[in-house]
Amino acid sequence: MNILILGSGQLARMMALAGYPLGLHVAAVDVNARNVVDPLTKLVSDKSLIQALVEADAISVEFEHIPQDLLEQVNATGKLKPSIESIMAGADRVKEKALLSGLNIANCPYKIVTDINQLDEAVVQLGEKLIIKASRDGYDGYGQWRLSSVTQLAELKLQLSELDLQKVPLVVEKMLCFERELSLVGVRSANGEIAYYPLAENLHHQGQLHVSVAPAPHVNEALNQQAQDVFNKLAHALGYVGVLAVEFFQMGDQLLVNEIAPRVHNSGHWSMQGADTCQFENHLRAISGLPLGATTVLKPTAMINIIGCDDFSKDILSIAGSHLHLYGKTVRAKRKMGHLNVSADSYAELGKTMQALAQYLPAEHFPMLKDEAARLATL
Amino acid sequence: MNILILGSGQLARMMALAGYPLGLHVAAVDVNARNVVDPLTKLVSDKSLIQALVEADAISVEFEHIPQDLLEQVNATGKLKPSIESIMAGADRVKEKALLSGLNIANCPYKIVTDINQLDEAVVQLGEKLIIKASRDGYDGYGQWRLSSVTQLAELKLQLSELDLQKVPLVVEKMLCFERELSLVGVRSANGEIAYYPLAENLHHQGQLHVSVAPAPHVNEALNQQAQDVFNKLAHALGYVGVLAVEFFQMGDQLLVNEIAPRVHNSGHWSMQGADTCQFENHLRAISGLPLGATTVLKPTAMINIIGCDDFSKDILSIAGSHLHLYGKTVRAKRKMGHLNVSADSYAELGKTMQALAQYLPAEHFPMLKDEAARLATL
Repeated sequence: MNILILGSGQLARMMALAGYPLGLHVAAVDVNARNVVDPLTKLVSDKSLIQALVEADAISVEFEHIPQDLLEQVNATGKLKPSIESIMAGADRVKEKALLSGLNIANCPYKIVTDINQLDEAVVQLGEKLIIKASRDGYDGYGQWRLSSVTQLAELKLQLSELDLQKVPLVVEKMLCFERELSLVGVRSANGEIAYYPLAENLHHQGQLHVSVAPAPHVNEALNQQAQDVFNKLAHALGYVGVLAVEFFQMGDQLLVNEIAPRVHNSGHWSMQGADTCQFENHLRAISGLPLGATTVLKPTAMINIIGCDDFSKDILSIAGSHLHLYGKTVRAKRKMGHLNVSADSYAELGKTMQALAQYLPAEHFPMLKDEAARLATL
Repeated sequence: MNILILGSGQLARMMALAGYPLGLHVAAVDVNARNVVDPLTKLVSDKSLIQALVEADAISVEFEHIPQDLLEQVNATGKLKPSIESIMAGADRVKEKALLSGLNIANCPYKIVTDINQLDEAVVQLGEKLIIKASRDGYDGYGQWRLSSVTQLAELKLQLSELDLQKVPLVVEKMLCFERELSLVGVRSANGEIAYYPLAENLHHQGQLHVSVAPAPHVNEALNQQAQDVFNKLAHALGYVGVLAVEFFQMGDQLLVNEIAPRVHNSGHWSMQGADTCQFENHLRAISGLPLGATTVLKPTAMINIIGCDDFSKDILSIAGSHLHLYGKTVRAKRKMGHLNVSADSYAELGKTMQALAQYLPAEHFPMLKDEAARLATL
């Protein structure tokens, strides 16, 4: 069976690795060059994009920011999973907000701004602490601005005045004092079967995910249920097939959706060691019409991103329970180079293992690791 | 880092899949065509064998029956792991027996036969129930004969009279009434660090492994220790680096070595789901000079070979804890097409899961499954 993935980065790579044992051959599309590549070797295929589209049994995406013409071309094959609406909702914050509001799903209070002077109204409506996001092409902290005080408003308006807000509106959100970010990664098959991974707790630094811990500590049944209800509403409304990730802010007992990602997600990478079936295999199973795999947790697991750094000691592998996942990239500032998964029998053991790991990992590249390790070690 | 594997079958394939996350690129050598192939895609590289030998950081094997000239050519690079002596001991039963006897390791009583008439002496010495094995090129039940009664001796001698026993001697072994076959898969690093997987119990049918269960039920500390002592003696004597498998017959409290395999082994495939670090990753870690990974068992796991059959229902994947590993081959009688790993929280649960699996798997291709499932279900 042939699977084609739009996008040829680490997510396509990890799907390819998960595909071989199932007899699924995963090819990837470089959406800029519009050619077909092997996501493992990066060798360009002599197969044309059209040929690959014809030969594919199922087509999916590893990221949501696909050029519109390509997305429509692929959608016309009838093989795209998840649905084009799902992918577009993930790629466009205006569509995403409309989807959430339409389904009465709690999310951050917001205002859509299509004229720079509407920012004044946004301050009146939402307060002076705001996060301003471009509706499209936002990725890992790019295309986002913050307003901390009304005194910065004039300067910010000047800064944003060059943007074409009719073409790319802004989604202005109230900056919330949330306690933590949680995410739910789940998977839905074509016949509507759903399997959820447990909620993961995510730690960010400068707009990038650095550490995820799953299952998230201190999650009660009600919180779990709330997250799963949101997942169900979204997956059902979108006719979703595949892995879907929903990011939440937790405020007390309430979960507010931050954003959705219509694909396998960085906060689900822990599942490669921590769950019976990893998210990559489950995405492939879903889009190929195979039964879903068990999402049972094997052990509490932390996923630690390796960002902008490739010169750490391989002695990290001497620490029992640690697993390395490199993406085969050349190093660049802020670039995700790979991740480590670490499992242990309890949160306390996990914390201690992470403390041992931290000794080998430069703090400037792993700024969240030491404190999170210390926190878990006391649980 | 570049790894080159002699042999391009499923073992090279599973090493390649385990290598990518570690940043290890695994290429394979078709030892007959003498070209370099990608063990995943089977595409022939435009790289020559010589180039690949030069570029490799470490070279290893996926099977022991390597043409002697090639093995010596590779050994001359100084990059071959495990040692050439290890590989030759695995490929030649006369060398293997000499190794075991030289180290005082208990094994099946035997006689080397280089003249057909020595078979008469073998009967006198070992009894009339014998297994006769060609010293080389024996693989999965080929090149083996049985003597059940002295009345068959004349016919057997006639049958074997065409063999050149000076060139390929016979190893004649007493047929033992052993209770079961166990195997120990372990790994040794270049600095002498050793990690063992638990003993696996192996079930054969017509000379082929069909089911392995790990950890083997009913293994006490003394038995474990005995197996590990044998492993240590062999690994130390051979200056071994990489994964080594030792097959034992259990007779009461004693383990007799049946044979050794200087490579990753079918009876270690369970480790892909059942252990913290699988045998393929650990072999790569060892030959690349990386620290060994933990061999801790996650759950009792059964490995079920898929032999000579490719038309089973994919509904097997609906059974929680079952994982499919296909090798991408076209079907042929007696050919290993893939395997299933099944894990559960206890032996009893494992047995029940295997019973559920058996409903989807044709009994003629999975002759050991039902009985083994029933046995485990009562544990």
